[in-house]
Amino acid sequence: MLKKLPERVKIFEVGPRDGLQNEEISVPTEAKIAMIDLLSATGLTNIEITSFVRPEWTPQLADSELVSTGINKKKGINYTALLPNVKGLERAGKSGLEEIAVFMSASQSHNKKNLNRTIEESLEIIQEVKKKSTEYGIKRVRAYLSTVFGCPYEGRINKKNVSKITRKLLDLGIYQVSLGDTIGIANPRQVEEVLESLFLVIEDQEQLALHFHDTRGMAIANSLVGLSMGVTTFDSSIGGLGGCPYAPGATGNVATEDLVNMFQSMGVETGINLEKLVECNNYLKKILGRELSSKFSQTFNSTKRVPV
Amino acid sequence: MLKKLPERVKIFEVGPRDGLQNEEISVPTEAKIAMIDLLSATGLTNIEITSFVRPEWTPQLADSELVSTGINKKKGINYTALLPNVKGLERAGKSGLEEIAVFMSASQSHNKKNLNRTIEESLEIIQEVKKKSTEYGIKRVRAYLSTVFGCPYEGRINKKNVSKITRKLLDLGIYQVSLGDTIGIANPRQVEEVLESLFLVIEDQEQLALHFHDTRGMAIANSLVGLSMGVTTFDSSIGGLGGCPYAPGATGNVATEDLVNMFQSMGVETGINLEKLVECNNYLKKILGRELSSKFSQTFNSTKRVPV
Repeated sequence: MLKKLPERVKIFEVGPRDGLQNEEISVPTEAKIAMIDLLSATGLTNIEITSFVRPEWTPQLADSELVSTGINKKKGINYTALLPNVKGLERAGKSGLEEIAVFMSASQSHNKKNLNRTIEESLEIIQEVKKKSTEYGIKRVRAYLSTVFGCPYEGRINKKNVSKITRKLLDLGIYQVSLGDTIGIANPRQVEEVLESLFLVIEDQEQLALHFHDTRGMAIANSLVGLSMGVTTFDSSIGGLGGCPYAPGATGNVATEDLVNMFQSMGVETGINLEKLVECNNYLKKILGRELSSKFSQTFNSTKRVPV
Repeated sequence: MLKKLPERVKIFEVGPRDGLQNEEISVPTEAKIAMIDLLSATGLTNIEITSFVRPEWTPQLADSELVSTGINKKKGINYTALLPNVKGLERAGKSGLEEIAVFMSASQSHNKKNLNRTIEESLEIIQEVKKKSTEYGIKRVRAYLSTVFGCPYEGRINKKNVSKITRKLLDLGIYQVSLGDTIGIANPRQVEEVLESLFLVIEDQEQLALHFHDTRGMAIANSLVGLSMGVTTFDSSIGGLGGCPYAPGATGNVATEDLVNMFQSMGVETGINLEKLVECNNYLKKILGRELSSKFSQTFNSTKRVPV
């Protein structure tokens, strides 16, 4: 099962956006900037730094311009931001970003509740954003497709619909579709089935990314299945950020450190320095005033060594 | 990779022993009994309830006789206990158990530090315990082989040595060898390699069990690899019990709820009721005065539903 693995994978760090937008505490702008600068020193090549949505929707990320222009942009790193429409595009363009991410849901009900649009309307708006993106200096557009493995309103999502929407997004010129397990309900067998179905409609593995939340503790196992099938891009959050109202870490993204450690211990290169990820985790613990859910960082802090 | 899975697996609950022995707090005898009785109501068929070692070694489990005789033994459930020698055997026999577990290490240095014996001496003592076990009414002897995937003193363990010791244990009449990742350092690729090597020396998959600690967050992924290769017995602890000096849950066993949920959501039967596992988790939270690391239980408590 694990004989032929990709030699190298790409980690897409989404902590400053997907992580912080779900934290209860609003992090001060200067701390966000410090966090992103620490992430830029780890070897990560893709960091989603904020979102350009209406501030009243995501007050935690209302300082998107300040963050985007305040960070120390390092050569070779792709800094990106999430946005829902052309208005967001203007703001992102003015902030000097070269990549943006759009988002929609694989579930009609979730799309309506979350975006107040149908799936078809979302695809139209994404088409418009993609078309206009070059005017604002944007070179690449990524898309998040959420609730791919399950929706809080509809339950399981038909994998044919997932493939259909993914193909449409690629046809609009989206360079990569990130398949989101928004409610953290995917299981390894399902991941295998959904990916097999998707492989029939794509040209290249790099057109897909996997985006798991660790709500039920399956994110690392699901990532392993993706890796074993040849997926080479994985979204994750430093420390497993992503708030939860009741218990530490339960609804966050898969932790970057845990994913990187697993990949590297299997001989799959990520180009990322684990100790530097732990430094960033330690900084965030101070800012958020709580332990983060990454088991690797917790263990590293007590043993002070990277396993070989 | 996941096309052919075992239809049914056995969960070996080790929380009352491996979990509690590593907790900082000593749990009162009546709470241990209540915990085991709650576990007995979940559908679990194998529960390790305590250990018969010298009380000064493991003060948390010094009440082994009281626990063994105090629980409400349910028909169809195998209650077992850990012990290091013939002295422990006598105590276990008097407590009415039909199965016991012996233990040793795959690493010479760890065996010496932990048991003050060489591997060869341990095998002799295990032979003696096995021989005498029937005199005390013991019907089956299981063995834990620890540090199979890595040792804090020696690092990686030669997989040929693991196979050799496993074979010797089986030749002594041990019915199942539980392969322990004592320091939680195994990675999925390594699990595959070690199992492939072990499959050459066993007659039957049921002679092996997997025993993962979630120290670096890889226990669930490692269990998945074992499952995909046909392993049908998995050790785990309710709530991911197993103390940690610095952060909740970081060095505990893999959580029973998380493992059972993953297996069942993949269509692999365990015979276990998830809601009843959560009840037991909730009881333990009160007793230990802290959140436990199982993500499934945390999520279940906030959503009040088992995913379908």
